[in-house]
Amino acid sequence: MIFIGIHKFFTSLNDLERIFRAPGRFKFEEHNVAAHSWKVSQYAMFFATLEEMNGATINWKSLYEKTINHDFAEVFIGDIKTPVKHASVELKQMLAHVEEKMMEKFIREEIPPDFQEVFFERMKEGKDETIEGRLLEFADKLDQFYESFAELKRGNTDKEFVIMYQQALEKLLKMPLINSVRYFRNEILNDVMHEETQINIAALTNEVLNTSE
Amino acid sequence: MIFIGIHKFFTSLNDLERIFRAPGRFKFEEHNVAAHSWKVSQYAMFFATLEEMNGATINWKSLYEKTINHDFAEVFIGDIKTPVKHASVELKQMLAHVEEKMMEKFIREEIPPDFQEVFFERMKEGKDETIEGRLLEFADKLDQFYESFAELKRGNTDKEFVIMYQQALEKLLKMPLINSVRYFRNEILNDVMHEETQINIAALTNEVLNTSE
Amino acid sequence: MIFIGIHKFFTSLNDLERIFRAPGRFKFEEHNVAAHSWKVSQYAMFFATLEEMNGATINWKSLYEKTINHDFAEVFIGDIKTPVKHASVELKQMLAHVEEKMMEKFIREEIPPDFQEVFFERMKEGKDETIEGRLLEFADKLDQFYESFAELKRGNTDKEFVIMYQQALEKLLKMPLINSVRYFRNEILNDVMHEETQINIAALTNEVLNTSE
Amino acid sequence: MIFIGIHKFFTSLNDLERIFRAPGRFKFEEHNVAAHSWKVSQYAMFFATLEEMNGATINWKSLYEKTINHDFAEVFIGDIKTPVKHASVELKQMLAHVEEKMMEKFIREEIPPDFQEVFFERMKEGKDETIEGRLLEFADKLDQFYESFAELKRGNTDKEFVIMYQQALEKLLKMPLINSVRYFRNEILNDVMHEETQINIAALTNEVLNTSE
Amino acid sequence: MIFIGIHKFFTSLNDLERIFRAPGRFKFEEHNVAAHSWKVSQYAMFFATLEEMNGATINWKSLYEKTINHDFAEVFIGDIKTPVKHASVELKQMLAHVEEKMMEKFIREEIPPDFQEVFFERMKEGKDETIEGRLLEFADKLDQFYESFAELKRGNTDKEFVIMYQQALEKLLKMPLINSVRYFRNEILNDVMHEETQINIAALTNEVLNTSE
Amino acid sequence: MIFIGIHKFFTSLNDLERIFRAPGRFKFEEHNVAAHSWKVSQYAMFFATLEEMNGATINWKSLYEKTINHDFAEVFIGDIKTPVKHASVELKQMLAHVEEKMMEKFIREEIPPDFQEVFFERMKEGKDETIEGRLLEFADKLDQFYESFAELKRGNTDKEFVIMYQQALEKLLKMPLINSVRYFRNEILNDVMHEETQINIAALTNEVLNTSE
Repeated sequence: MIFIGIHKFFTSLNDLERIFRAPGRFKFEEHNVAAHSWKVSQYAMFFATLEEMNGATINWKSLYEKTINHDFAEVFIGDIKTPVKHASVELKQMLAHVEEKMMEKFIREEIPPDFQEVFFERMKEGKDETIEGRLLEFADKLDQFYESFAELKRGNTDKEFVIMYQQALEKLLKMPLINSVRYFRNEILNDVMHEETQINIAALTNEVLNTSE
Repeated sequence: MIFIGIHKFFTSLNDLERIFRAPGRFKFEEHNVAAHSWKVSQYAMFFATLEEMNGATINWKSLYEKTINHDFAEVFIGDIKTPVKHASVELKQMLAHVEEKMMEKFIREEIPPDFQEVFFERMKEGKDETIEGRLLEFADKLDQFYESFAELKRGNTDKEFVIMYQQALEKLLKMPLINSVRYFRNEILNDVMHEETQINIAALTNEVLNTSE
Repeated sequence: MIFIGIHKFFTSLNDLERIFRAPGRFKFEEHNVAAHSWKVSQYAMFFATLEEMNGATINWKSLYEKTINHDFAEVFIGDIKTPVKHASVELKQMLAHVEEKMMEKFIREEIPPDFQEVFFERMKEGKDETIEGRLLEFADKLDQFYESFAELKRGNTDKEFVIMYQQALEKLLKMPLINSVRYFRNEILNDVMHEETQINIAALTNEVLNTSE
Repeated sequence: MIFIGIHKFFTSLNDLERIFRAPGRFKFEEHNVAAHSWKVSQYAMFFATLEEMNGATINWKSLYEKTINHDFAEVFIGDIKTPVKHASVELKQMLAHVEEKMMEKFIREEIPPDFQEVFFERMKEGKDETIEGRLLEFADKLDQFYESFAELKRGNTDKEFVIMYQQALEKLLKMPLINSVRYFRNEILNDVMHEETQINIAALTNEVLNTSE
Repeated sequence: MIFIGIHKFFTSLNDLERIFRAPGRFKFEEHNVAAHSWKVSQYAMFFATLEEMNGATINWKSLYEKTINHDFAEVFIGDIKTPVKHASVELKQMLAHVEEKMMEKFIREEIPPDFQEVFFERMKEGKDETIEGRLLEFADKLDQFYESFAELKRGNTDKEFVIMYQQALEKLLKMPLINSVRYFRNEILNDVMHEETQINIAALTNEVLNTSE
Repeated sequence: MIFIGIHKFFTSLNDLERIFRAPGRFKFEEHNVAAHSWKVSQYAMFFATLEEMNGATINWKSLYEKTINHDFAEVFIGDIKTPVKHASVELKQMLAHVEEKMMEKFIREEIPPDFQEVFFERMKEGKDETIEGRLLEFADKLDQFYESFAELKRGNTDKEFVIMYQQALEKLLKMPLINSVRYFRNEILNDVMHEETQINIAALTNEVLNTSE
């Protein structure tokens, strides 16, 4: 078989349109990893703008790279169920290690030599301690918040979405991004709690707000 | 929250109708784990009958248990992509270990005490050295063979299905089930190679037959 | 055209992944006949175990055969709507007769001679007066119970699912399987009535419980 | 429960959007009975216009009624697989009888009294010896022709579609509608045979043309 | 490339099975333009019968033509979102103009010369001041009413469907078809308001009834 | 109704997961606008890197903004069919004008005042004469290239995809981005033409290469 270059990377992007999030759960609407990545890049841009307005310095190239690439590795492993990922510290490390090895193999074998260094840099874990890393984590969690919100709003009675919603909410409120968290809490949660919903989302939200204070 | 018994197990069966095999690949037709399990139980019954006609003794209860339960653990972890599972021996062991731990936790917490022992027995890895264990493995591989066959027949040009087809074929031909393998080779492969297909399946088959002799 | 043997039977199993239950009704989730057959084989194994614990003798091979084959004939006729099947006694008999004739034709023309006798035995109506026949009927009805339960739980307002739910419940409570019925009533129904649901399932259940006493 | 009038009939139309044609077969594209009925009403209007240009008198109201209502009864019975319908003369008559009884019951119970006579007239079998009855049959067969054509064109290797295509073609060529048949043969088949297709449709067509002469 | 005649028109009908109404909105059930056209032809036939019973003279050929063809132009432009169509008077006129030009081009290039005049007549805007034109508009609006009704009934919390429902209702009540409106108001709305629904449809309906008096 | 802020913008992102590209055409695989936007942001990042390696200066913030926002306006108008957009110069201008007006209305009514200026800047037409504008256009066209490539590869015989493929190819080859075009031509097209495909893509590609020289 012939050598295949960046063409292989480009066609692999299409594979992420067929990896669905939260596999195995009943949902009124499915979300693929490609669309999720785009929504994350949108949320991150908004909150980066907000932080910049409040005096932060944003490395936009880094934020762009981090958000669009943060789930690319799912092309190798699929969307492993969250409980598995958190089953044990060793498993989490082992899976992270395998993911890294598979990414390395992919870059060495499929990416043209001139671009390998760039790809190694871009494809490494993005949720680091930089402001861009924290914005990525915030945005990623926000999409979990919105995905579970939409299911609850339409009346999905699966307990899993209550858990997903409340866990995302708790984590968002604790993120070390003071302006983003304040905006989320004061503006977004306010609008969220005024929506008409099949399941009482305002109550679920208040439960978390009360315990997280 | 109240204690939930076998009802929880019964509703979890429905989750396997939403776990799809070979996630992320383009397919003309999707297959869920529930339907796959049923097809495996059908193939296994046929080949067990064939082996019995040739003098073997079949423990039908065991075969029944093994086939319908062999992928139940996917309810916890999803259908992890095959390349991940085989990325390293340690990872494979680690994943098997996690699967076991999650199954244990599930049985201890969800299955009523009177049935826990039965469930521990039924849910353990079924592909052992008994004839029922080998029939399970043969039947499981046969479904991989048929799933990739159907994609190639309809013109799916994804190389992955050529690989899946040829690997399944190689493994089937080497299984320690002499009558089943002979029947598969002489009867089934003959019919397979006479089908009209978009991709030349007879050629792919002969390639494997020639090298496996 | 060439003669086609067991390969034809194996590929026909795939057809049952495309026959959907309760055609024409609005559902939040579809169920195919292959996945349904698997769930029935699971329920039947559980209740057979329970009956065995209470002193019954189970023919496991027979139960395995009955459960996985009980809807195979739908490959010929599709899932005819229930009201049609029960429109008149003659029609029901006539349809059963046609089904039998088509099965006979299929076995004579597609199944290799050595296996025809076995297939005739396995493919005949399984809901007979043996304990395995009663377990099949109980398990089949239980899947109707769970399918309608899931729709009502998610808020499906179609009256048909209320009827399906209550009819399945009535029949389950009257089945001549004393231990299974008691367990279903005392354990499963109790858990069912504690679930949070969009439609008041506890009320629908109590209505049946009160009239069936 | 309260009496429900024409509202019930109107909502039942929606059910036909969920009855799919040729259930159980692998298809690249599904077709529901509602959309099929519309396509039949389109084909029929075209060929009625052609016959009118050639001197025939068309009862347009009758053609309108016949085409849009011809498959309404599938709301009761679903799309029973064709081989079943033709399994025996008695079964066909019995099914037709049941369909009639269910339609009668529906009209008596759901349609307001003032409209019952009109509905009895409109819902009876439309494929009679009038020119409108023949146009309905021609149009219905033409949709079978186009549905199988589209599958073969895209490379569906299921033999069933070859059979459907050739049977529809044979019947179209024999219909007692001289101008429509001539137009179909000289104009439409000519265009059909010039299309680029994955499966050799021109050859399949010529086979029928040669034997039907 | 060769000239293609009515065959091209017939295959384009299939395209309308892939144009979905109200694109971009979350719906529990999708509706394609082909099925919608059929439902409109059914509603129109009913109300034309009602008007005829009340003394009106119906041109059935015209009604047949108007209903089945009224959305054919969507094959060229898709289902443009309603807010766009009504964004400005000029845009609406411009879009209507483009639609007309594309239809003209299609008829000149694809329809055989002998049928071009007929097609120009049939494909022009059908919602004119004739009784058939008004029946088309009534039936088209009624399908919007039923589509939004079905979403609200199942618990869709998207405000858009409340708006769609109420706007359709308002327009239906004002249509210059005195018998049809009376029947809709006295019979159909009465049944609608007695249905069990997830969202309070009776309240939404009464709101409109009270303001439209 | 209460005022709704950025929450409304965030939930509207989800709407773009339900707007499908090339509506009405038969496709083996659908693509939504959200996933498309992500793929465009990936292609653009690659070619921006390539241009930077060749001496260009990239404004990464601008490229990030342009790529992720370039189709946001489809949330208002849907994916209007390409032939409509190009039917006339006035229509194109008129549609662009409406789109602009709807975007303006959206920003004024839904976006909090502090962010309106930023949104006006980000949501304006991105395909300008800057290098980032040209990279956006190149990447957008490349996704059209890959979407049609994937359909042809799998055997889609719809002529429309041949046209889409060849038009995208022609435009890509003429883009004023010398390094990107050279790389696309020498590396990517080479790999593309070595793929095994159901339709002869190498021939279609050479046809364009020969005429574009």
